[in-house]
Amino acid sequence: MALIVKKFGGSSVGTTEKIMNVAKRIVNEKGKDDKVVVVVSAMGNTTDELIELANKIDSNPYKYTREMDMLLTTGEQVSISLLTMAFKSLGEKAVSLTGSLAGIKTNAVHTKGKILDIKPQRVLDELDKGNIVIVAGFQGCDQLGDPVTLGRGGSDTSAVALAGALHADSCEIYTDVEGIYSADPRIVKNARKMKEITYYEMLEMARLGSGVMQPRSVEVGQLMNIPIHVRSTFTNKPGTIIREEYTMEEKGFVIRGVSHDDKVAKIAVLGVPNNPGIAYSIFSALAEKSIDVDMIVQSIRNIEKNVTDMVFTVASEDLSTAKEVVDKAAGDLNAIGVLIEKDVAKVSIVGVGMLGSPGIAARMFGALSKAGINIDVISTSEISISCLIKSSSLKEAVNIIHNEFFPEG
Amino acid sequence: MALIVKKFGGSSVGTTEKIMNVAKRIVNEKGKDDKVVVVVSAMGNTTDELIELANKIDSNPYKYTREMDMLLTTGEQVSISLLTMAFKSLGEKAVSLTGSLAGIKTNAVHTKGKILDIKPQRVLDELDKGNIVIVAGFQGCDQLGDPVTLGRGGSDTSAVALAGALHADSCEIYTDVEGIYSADPRIVKNARKMKEITYYEMLEMARLGSGVMQPRSVEVGQLMNIPIHVRSTFTNKPGTIIREEYTMEEKGFVIRGVSHDDKVAKIAVLGVPNNPGIAYSIFSALAEKSIDVDMIVQSIRNIEKNVTDMVFTVASEDLSTAKEVVDKAAGDLNAIGVLIEKDVAKVSIVGVGMLGSPGIAARMFGALSKAGINIDVISTSEISISCLIKSSSLKEAVNIIHNEFFPEG
Repeated sequence: MALIVKKFGGSSVGTTEKIMNVAKRIVNEKGKDDKVVVVVSAMGNTTDELIELANKIDSNPYKYTREMDMLLTTGEQVSISLLTMAFKSLGEKAVSLTGSLAGIKTNAVHTKGKILDIKPQRVLDELDKGNIVIVAGFQGCDQLGDPVTLGRGGSDTSAVALAGALHADSCEIYTDVEGIYSADPRIVKNARKMKEITYYEMLEMARLGSGVMQPRSVEVGQLMNIPIHVRSTFTNKPGTIIREEYTMEEKGFVIRGVSHDDKVAKIAVLGVPNNPGIAYSIFSALAEKSIDVDMIVQSIRNIEKNVTDMVFTVASEDLSTAKEVVDKAAGDLNAIGVLIEKDVAKVSIVGVGMLGSPGIAARMFGALSKAGINIDVISTSEISISCLIKSSSLKEAVNIIHNEFFPEG
Repeated sequence: MALIVKKFGGSSVGTTEKIMNVAKRIVNEKGKDDKVVVVVSAMGNTTDELIELANKIDSNPYKYTREMDMLLTTGEQVSISLLTMAFKSLGEKAVSLTGSLAGIKTNAVHTKGKILDIKPQRVLDELDKGNIVIVAGFQGCDQLGDPVTLGRGGSDTSAVALAGALHADSCEIYTDVEGIYSADPRIVKNARKMKEITYYEMLEMARLGSGVMQPRSVEVGQLMNIPIHVRSTFTNKPGTIIREEYTMEEKGFVIRGVSHDDKVAKIAVLGVPNNPGIAYSIFSALAEKSIDVDMIVQSIRNIEKNVTDMVFTVASEDLSTAKEVVDKAAGDLNAIGVLIEKDVAKVSIVGVGMLGSPGIAARMFGALSKAGINIDVISTSEISISCLIKSSSLKEAVNIIHNEFFPEG
């Protein structure tokens, strides 16, 4: 007997046919005494259709965050009821629960809620009655009982948090890829599916641009120590298990993956006086606008005049706001000027194995150098090394670095 | 200052444009210190579309009553969120509440729930904050918090019950007609809109075929003594107020209305032995199948043989089931045979004024007789008299009787 939480995203339940397929698959795989909780997102385009309706009332409906949550939570409520009917039509006992009924308690930050607590008694009661329990992902309720959505990646977070609260044996996230790869398979032909990866590495890869899992759900998994099995909706092959520590040796892999991100932009503030508080004045102004700054390099332009250049990267989507903030700060600081570069990209290697392996960075830089790819900025964390390069070299860089660390054969 | 509950049905909120119109109308009519609660149904075709989805999962989804409720309650949740956004976009403070959040507690009879209790504290709190409160009609929740729908006419019932629990000054039901008429205006050109009508008369008229208000909501109004103002979504004219007693004299109206029903069928069980228990054996068999029997006449066929004919009417939709039941009972009773007549219709007059006015029935029969319309069966209640006639004479009969009691000019 095992208690398993399975999560299916919107594309897995995009039509009533797909909903039937999900139900059939779960019934086929279910052990006689298994207890199964299924977390689902809204059907395919439902959310977009609901937003479109709201747009007809007001061109910017998201300013009514509570009402958007009231509206959007109906999407999952439709899919849980249909999936439950599908189970019942197959002769299974099943029951649907909204996030609220499943005991998922959130703060009151509508459209971007955070789970504060899960009181899963109802879920446990329904499992004890022999039901497959179908829970609406992406949603919970605040203290008043009002529906609150969890923001991006919310359904994964619901599933992992619910698995934690239920002390589930595993949490399976079904997606349109087969697991976590050593690099994006669309870019690197020989990318390898990893059997396991640690929470830390997964979080670092997500931060550095790997898109399979939203960081929040991984953080919750780590916090509650729930292994997360990322696998395909369309095959029965095992995927990748994200967990605290490796349970098996995967020989020769000193790093876990190569990540990349081409949605970055570089900002250089040139010739600022090198006084204490300069970095603070620029970065606190950016922080006020909720702009995350990533790679930061401060280099000396002119020792005699004591002026310096400050170089950093931001997400492309934040660039226009960041530029306004930085232009103003640069003016206040009497900087020489501000340079923007949009055609940059970041390539990174990630792996807990690189701690205490000083040769790793050199191998990465060497591989890029051999291919004639210039490194603009370098940054490192405990378990990653990132290089900023020209976007035009990104695909080649990812392949070269992957070949260096995951040689074919 | 007044506390007003207003209910708008699905056709009044069928599109986002109509939703904006409802919001504008309410804002225009709202007194400065008025407290307004708006009860809405699902948008136009939403419910049908949701049922269609469920039909793709199972050809008979209504057997999964709890899941149908989970599915269908999303319809009103969409309309309350959109209407609330509409109010906000007009600069009003507003908040949406599902039936559950509004404190509407029901039994657990899914798809046909009954309101057990309303705990309106949240509604009162939101009104005190200066909000227009938009409540999902047609729904509440059971003891577990599971969504339950109220069945036919459910949104009217939600509105009236909520008005009662809030001790509202009035409950306005907006519909596509302008009020309650002395006869169906599609049949009787000179039908008059009544200013007032009592709960009893309205219930009797509904029972006898007048379709404007579902009986349940009227019963709730009577129970809680809430005046119900039935009026048009499309004009500002006053409609009809349903209340306990008349507050004004409407001269000369000894009856309140002429109702009709052509969805009836007559069943005659011929030549049954006239022994005690015969009626019981037929009607208890019908009751077991939940078939309501309406007009009943027992007449003697042959005194010497002591056999009798038993004639009664049922709703057309129950006829085929009723026939099966009656055929079996007639066989068991050694009756001569069973006759079915489908081309019959019922015309009725209703009014508390006829109590103690013995001439009323005579005037009705006389009017029909003068027009050469034969009366097949007659039945009476305290406040109504009904005649079963041929369906082909129905339209003429309704007009003749209406002219008798509501002479033109």
